[in-house]
Amino acid sequence: MAWADVFQQKRFSPEKFQKVNLFETERMFCDVYCFEPGQDQAAHKHQGADKIYYVLEGKGIVQIGAERRELTPGMVAHAESGEEHAVSNPGPDRLVMLVFMAPRPS
Amino acid sequence: MAWADVFQQKRFSPEKFQKVNLFETERMFCDVYCFEPGQDQAAHKHQGADKIYYVLEGKGIVQIGAERRELTPGMVAHAESGEEHAVSNPGPDRLVMLVFMAPRPS
Repeated sequence: MAWADVFQQKRFSPEKFQKVNLFETERMFCDVYCFEPGQDQAAHKHQGADKIYYVLEGKGIVQIGAERRELTPGMVAHAESGEEHAVSNPGPDRLVMLVFMAPRPS
Repeated sequence: MAWADVFQQKRFSPEKFQKVNLFETERMFCDVYCFEPGQDQAAHKHQGADKIYYVLEGKGIVQIGAERRELTPGMVAHAESGEEHAVSNPGPDRLVMLVFMAPRPS
C-alpha cells in the first residue's frame, strides 16, 4: 500500500499506547503512535537508527538525550542513533504522533 | 539540532519549490517541501531509498508508480525504492509537505 489517511488510522487502548504501522521496508518504518492521557513510551535508544516524532494532535512531553520539551501539533523531534528518547502524554487530551525510523530495527 | 517547529520553517520562492532541511544524517533526512500554486517536483526515482510525503497544508497531486492521487492534510504517500514519484500543486493554495527519505541519497 502506498497511501494512507493518518487520522483514519488512529487506534487507542486503555492498556498501553498503540503503534499503528503505515509503511515498512528494511530501510524504514512509518507509524502512527496513539497515547491516552498518562500513557508513555519509556526512555530507550537504538544504535545505528534515527527516529523522528511529529506531533499531529494533543501535547507530548518528548525527551531527546538530556533535554525534555513540550511539543504541540506542528513540532518535530529527532533522536539520532544512540540518543536516549522517550515520550509521555500529560493529558488532558489524547496524543497522536507520526513516527519515522530509519533504518527499521531488525 | 533535535527540535523544530515545522510551520516556522516554511519558505517559498516564485522560481521553484523549496526544500527546507530539518534533520539529516547518513541514515535519513527530514525536510519541509513548500510549493507555490503551479509548482511541482518532476517524476523521478531513487534506487535503494524510500520516500514518504505527508501533507501539512494545501492540496497535492502525488504520483506513486502508475497511480496519481489528490492528497489533503493528514494524508501520506510512500514511494518505495525504485518507484517513480512526483508531486504537483494544483492550487489555489500553497502546498506544504513533510518529507522523509531513508537512507539519505549520497
